[in-house]
Amino acid sequence: MTVSPFRLICRSSKSAARRGEVRTAHGTFQTPIFMPVGTQATVKGVTPENLKELGAQIILGNTYHLFVRPGHQLIKQLGGLHKFMNWDRPILTDSGGFQIFSLSDLAKITEQGAAFKSHLDGSDLFLSPEDAIEVQEALGSDIMMCLDTCIPYPSSRDETIAATELTARWAKRSRVAHQNRDQLLFGIIQGGMYEDLRAQAIEQLVEIGFDGYAIGGLSVGEPVEIMREMTEKTIALMPDDYPKYLMGVGTPEDLVESVYRGVDMFDCVMPTRNARNGMLFTSTGRLVIKNARFRDDHRPIDEACDCYVCRHYSRAYLRHLYMAREILSSQLNTIHNLHYFVSLMAKMRQAIEDDRFEKFRDDFYAIRSNQDRA
Amino acid sequence: MTVSPFRLICRSSKSAARRGEVRTAHGTFQTPIFMPVGTQATVKGVTPENLKELGAQIILGNTYHLFVRPGHQLIKQLGGLHKFMNWDRPILTDSGGFQIFSLSDLAKITEQGAAFKSHLDGSDLFLSPEDAIEVQEALGSDIMMCLDTCIPYPSSRDETIAATELTARWAKRSRVAHQNRDQLLFGIIQGGMYEDLRAQAIEQLVEIGFDGYAIGGLSVGEPVEIMREMTEKTIALMPDDYPKYLMGVGTPEDLVESVYRGVDMFDCVMPTRNARNGMLFTSTGRLVIKNARFRDDHRPIDEACDCYVCRHYSRAYLRHLYMAREILSSQLNTIHNLHYFVSLMAKMRQAIEDDRFEKFRDDFYAIRSNQDRA
Repeated sequence: MTVSPFRLICRSSKSAARRGEVRTAHGTFQTPIFMPVGTQATVKGVTPENLKELGAQIILGNTYHLFVRPGHQLIKQLGGLHKFMNWDRPILTDSGGFQIFSLSDLAKITEQGAAFKSHLDGSDLFLSPEDAIEVQEALGSDIMMCLDTCIPYPSSRDETIAATELTARWAKRSRVAHQNRDQLLFGIIQGGMYEDLRAQAIEQLVEIGFDGYAIGGLSVGEPVEIMREMTEKTIALMPDDYPKYLMGVGTPEDLVESVYRGVDMFDCVMPTRNARNGMLFTSTGRLVIKNARFRDDHRPIDEACDCYVCRHYSRAYLRHLYMAREILSSQLNTIHNLHYFVSLMAKMRQAIEDDRFEKFRDDFYAIRSNQDRA
Repeated sequence: MTVSPFRLICRSSKSAARRGEVRTAHGTFQTPIFMPVGTQATVKGVTPENLKELGAQIILGNTYHLFVRPGHQLIKQLGGLHKFMNWDRPILTDSGGFQIFSLSDLAKITEQGAAFKSHLDGSDLFLSPEDAIEVQEALGSDIMMCLDTCIPYPSSRDETIAATELTARWAKRSRVAHQNRDQLLFGIIQGGMYEDLRAQAIEQLVEIGFDGYAIGGLSVGEPVEIMREMTEKTIALMPDDYPKYLMGVGTPEDLVESVYRGVDMFDCVMPTRNARNGMLFTSTGRLVIKNARFRDDHRPIDEACDCYVCRHYSRAYLRHLYMAREILSSQLNTIHNLHYFVSLMAKMRQAIEDDRFEKFRDDFYAIRSNQDRA
């Protein structure tokens, strides 16, 4: 049995929402937390200083991408991922399972591991659970994830059982391969959309014993109601004294609903990817910056926002940058969107501490529905 | 006669190099100076804070680009270019003449002005000398440039005479149109590669009277020796108590050689454009970051550089970002290259103050030739 890196600070009295912190080799982060995604050893469009200024406490790196380019051995040789990318706060690396599943049409999963083709040059690559640990140990991330097999939606019960069982066997092998105890290792709960298989997956993972547990295989195309239901049911069965991480989720609404159901950790490309496509998040809803009505709009993106972008730039300027395809468009939009996600989590943490999370959640929706009429 | 915004601080005792400063409505900048180019109301890839941190004192905006998109009236309505782009230090705007010349195959120059097609949508546009002033007054730049007719290289003497005379008549009209005396107005010296025509152009411009004088029509394809010779001869004929600006120049070597010949002000897209293409400037020469030999190079771009990038990132990381086509590649490369150009000017200013500019120039070449052997 491992000592949990999670410390509970307080609970909401009227929901499963909880406030805590997770200790890692590069410092402690506060939960519930959103982790910006730094796919290729950079969070696209922003510097580490931008990330710190907007309040990011931990970022995510993608094992698959770094394995393919520039290679984990090179990063290790250069002092590890933190030094390579100039980020001294915690980093979580995913296992590569999801990218192999989503990027490679030709992935072949066997008992041994995943054979796949590089998305860059089509070359043949292979990643076993042990390899995924080796890669992540070379990267030196603070939190590693076990290689898992992501289950598409919809999948039959038999397919789901097979993939979930394989994920459990891989989790066991990952635990055995795990050498560097400065790096935490999280297990990934599969089980598809079957509650009993989720329960069984949790049981198997807890028996192996991990430093945290993640819900995988959600946000893969299922209706949002099913995602919320599966989150709620799975969270309730997860060991309460360990971090609970919902992988790859989600919209601001998803974050609020999932915190309400007890999730501690999130990651998603949505704020960064949407930023580059000109879709901005605000306290009153979404805003598509290329819209002609912003042409001469002197207001900031969000009048309730105090981020660097909202303090210094107008919607008209941001629209101009977007229309002119300027690099600064991606930079500023990314800073704003990440600030929105990171601040939303900070506000939720404060609301839980003050035991007014349900009020916060009501207000969150009230402001947004007002705007839809504006 | 106008009061010159230029104040001479000191001169080199062994060359025409000089150290001074230019007073504008947004503050005083030190000469010799390099102005980063902010074509579309942004210096591509960097924030105003990046520019300040790397020491930029004044930037250049492009009248043509801002006229075409988003439009000068819009920028005026939003409080002017400084506010629009969040830059509170001096801005020089060019007149649009060079862009009309270089971007539009279908530009038609008449006595009245330049008729041309938008590079964005092919629509018909027209810019007279008076229009160029109106646009720049709407933008609110600190230094405006007269609309000129850029002369291709090579051009016959007759063609050069005609274009130079037209530029002089346009300069007169620009001066008359100039209303806002908070904005300085510089005349542009044409005359092609003919020394006597350059002399005549200067005479005509000085008679009209401007706040500064710029050498136009160099760096348009002529051999570097001709450019240097024309610079030297033209500079010598320019009024010494006004700023001397060499437009669109150039390489680090060009800057050193032109300061040596008495130039006060420069602008060029080279540091920013080359940065985005992965070509980096260092104290010992140029470096193409995609080169395979940088794959595992833990050193900074330039071990003699103290810029943000060189303090925090390795060549290996910058190569990775470039190969992965990450936005941060353009950001970091631009910060480094601009820092190189801006620092080079600061070093030249100090060398002139210490009256050791010729030693500085010798050392500049000595370090570079050493590296070519390394």
